[in-house]
Amino acid sequence: MVNVLEIGERAKAAEPFLRIMSTNQKNLALEQIAAKLVQNENSILLENKKDMEIANRNHMNPGLLDRLLLNHERIEGMAEGLRQLAQLEDPIGEVISMKRRPNELLIGQKRVPLGVVGIIYESRPNVTADAFGLCFKTGNAVILKGGSDALYSNKAIVDCIRTALMEIGVCGDAIQLIEDTSRDTTTAFMKLNDYVDVLIPRGGAGLINAVVNNSTIPVIETGTGNCHIYVDESADFEMAIRIIFNAKTGRIGVCNACESLVIHKNIIRDFLPLLGEKLSEKNVELRGDELAVLSLPSVIPAVESDYSTEYLDYILSVKTVSSIDEAIAHINKYSTQHSESIISKDYENTQKFLNEIDSAAVYVNASTRFTDGFEFGFGAEIGISTQKLHARGPMGLHALTTTKYIIYGNGQIR
Amino acid sequence: MVNVLEIGERAKAAEPFLRIMSTNQKNLALEQIAAKLVQNENSILLENKKDMEIANRNHMNPGLLDRLLLNHERIEGMAEGLRQLAQLEDPIGEVISMKRRPNELLIGQKRVPLGVVGIIYESRPNVTADAFGLCFKTGNAVILKGGSDALYSNKAIVDCIRTALMEIGVCGDAIQLIEDTSRDTTTAFMKLNDYVDVLIPRGGAGLINAVVNNSTIPVIETGTGNCHIYVDESADFEMAIRIIFNAKTGRIGVCNACESLVIHKNIIRDFLPLLGEKLSEKNVELRGDELAVLSLPSVIPAVESDYSTEYLDYILSVKTVSSIDEAIAHINKYSTQHSESIISKDYENTQKFLNEIDSAAVYVNASTRFTDGFEFGFGAEIGISTQKLHARGPMGLHALTTTKYIIYGNGQIR
Repeated sequence: MVNVLEIGERAKAAEPFLRIMSTNQKNLALEQIAAKLVQNENSILLENKKDMEIANRNHMNPGLLDRLLLNHERIEGMAEGLRQLAQLEDPIGEVISMKRRPNELLIGQKRVPLGVVGIIYESRPNVTADAFGLCFKTGNAVILKGGSDALYSNKAIVDCIRTALMEIGVCGDAIQLIEDTSRDTTTAFMKLNDYVDVLIPRGGAGLINAVVNNSTIPVIETGTGNCHIYVDESADFEMAIRIIFNAKTGRIGVCNACESLVIHKNIIRDFLPLLGEKLSEKNVELRGDELAVLSLPSVIPAVESDYSTEYLDYILSVKTVSSIDEAIAHINKYSTQHSESIISKDYENTQKFLNEIDSAAVYVNASTRFTDGFEFGFGAEIGISTQKLHARGPMGLHALTTTKYIIYGNGQIR
Repeated sequence: MVNVLEIGERAKAAEPFLRIMSTNQKNLALEQIAAKLVQNENSILLENKKDMEIANRNHMNPGLLDRLLLNHERIEGMAEGLRQLAQLEDPIGEVISMKRRPNELLIGQKRVPLGVVGIIYESRPNVTADAFGLCFKTGNAVILKGGSDALYSNKAIVDCIRTALMEIGVCGDAIQLIEDTSRDTTTAFMKLNDYVDVLIPRGGAGLINAVVNNSTIPVIETGTGNCHIYVDESADFEMAIRIIFNAKTGRIGVCNACESLVIHKNIIRDFLPLLGEKLSEKNVELRGDELAVLSLPSVIPAVESDYSTEYLDYILSVKTVSSIDEAIAHINKYSTQHSESIISKDYENTQKFLNEIDSAAVYVNASTRFTDGFEFGFGAEIGISTQKLHARGPMGLHALTTTKYIIYGNGQIR
């Protein structure tokens, strides 16, 4: 077992240097690291080849193999991600508010780095550069714990970044990789409360639950999305079909894809056959309740668990409701509080939906697929939070910061 | 063991009703509950007497006995706290930002309740009404788990609040008390992730650590304060002495009291005797390093642990440094990141201190005692956060809220 305590101490020791780096220094470093990654392409690809060979030998499935693979375009993509971060506004140092109290104390709230960020992720080597870039731009030290299948690739990328940092006189411990992927080491990492300010798991539900259940460090849960679209009685059918087709079939493996449809009973007989026809273009399987089956015979009878399943596949559940209230209650019960949309022309129902749906992103007449840091205009994304503390919804650079109060006095006592 | 799952379910079931209560309804309810508490004074005092009798029989120490005691003034105080909450601005529903994206999606961020808040606290019955009021004003259901020594008092207060709520047609499960104070029940409570959105421990370091280490629910750590004052070479001696006297002796048992002094070596010989004289008025014991002892013979030699101790007593540690950098490094190492102050006339040093001290509240030329929700102008306080996620420093009503994105579209797909 690696001494994770020592890794924690080194990250903590890097904190004061990162905290006071100017935006210019940070941007220059990001540019230089991008150049270094491109320059070291061959050696990184050689290491990635080792991971791929082992993965092939272990019969890793094609989807995971594809995530693990690096090539010229993907290394260029990592470098471009870092260059784009250099172009983004630096949130650090902004004074959000500054007010004078009756006793003349001037109390301000200033945006500062969190300190040390821990990231636990699966075997996607591009996350290594991405996560580092986001943390570095916000003045945080990062400790990475990637999947064991990507160890050679991750080591190569981290070495390259550390070398670039040290060449320009920045503390290399701004990024550290936990190379020991044993369970004991991972557990010890999740208890490093004295050194790590926040832990962000990036990956599937299993990984996220393991972190939530075992970490004593505050966690930002980036989540699964059982996203709903509710087709109100007053919906424009053409719009509803266009949006559902996009949200279900645009990209099936993502957390903002639509997994469940809720339809008002008064329109289901007219609407569902039209929708079914469009979705059949992509062979989408529908699983619904009795009225759904009656409305469209190709619908397969749903079981209770269908309503709580994030399929990540060409499958869509269908639930009939007799009112907007029933729709809201159903969604709040089964959703993972990620993204939900109502398709409606009715003012009162849209307002009610916006007010009463308890999810990170609530839409009117738009696809759930927009829940994404880039689409929201953040320029970058560390994940999508489905918890309510600290950050909710797509998380950009701001989610990697905290604030502190700065108070200017002239001798005040209480 | 009580079925905490059922308590969680009831709180969750109350959530939708609380979420849509208007500000007027909430304020009216707070006023009515205040009236009910005053009206039920006698029965609450009778129950409190039972707690006091048991506590006396168990030889509870005088400080704790005083916290446990209720009387006319304290019940009036609880009622007045609720009335003041009714006067405060309701943060719920505020749309913090609303921007139009290039594709015409209008994306806004709206302040909403957290949902269900859990509070674990010690035997201070007034916290029962306080914590309820703050949660209710922000549209949250609250589950309270108070100290076993205050059980009769807490039950009487909660019954009174529930009765008042139900009389005006509000769901009584807006407040629930876990009456079983066994360890098993407490542990089960801290794992209710499906029902409780945040857990806030209020009490001493032992309670807080137990919650941080055992809860799988996100926790807001309200913390201990090992607060420092740094007397810079350029400090105005008179101001420094006035501020230190206030911060150390104004109220010794509070988290924003000063526990440690850091002094520049060039002034310690002149400064410390003057400070010692003033502090002797309150018999403050000084524990310092070699130079401190040389400067003032009554100073007791400090040991390493003195610098990390929150005394909550008439004791102050003294550390000599030879530069502002050394002062900052010392403070960042030993402080609990609560509140620190620099006394200085030097522009560069004050800016450096404000920038580089990593604490929730960083002061120039003022007493650390101001770190408090009321002093900061929040009108109420649920605690002072010493963690970096979600809320840092004094937490008012905003800390009990989250946001959600509301998105107005007109048919957009991605």
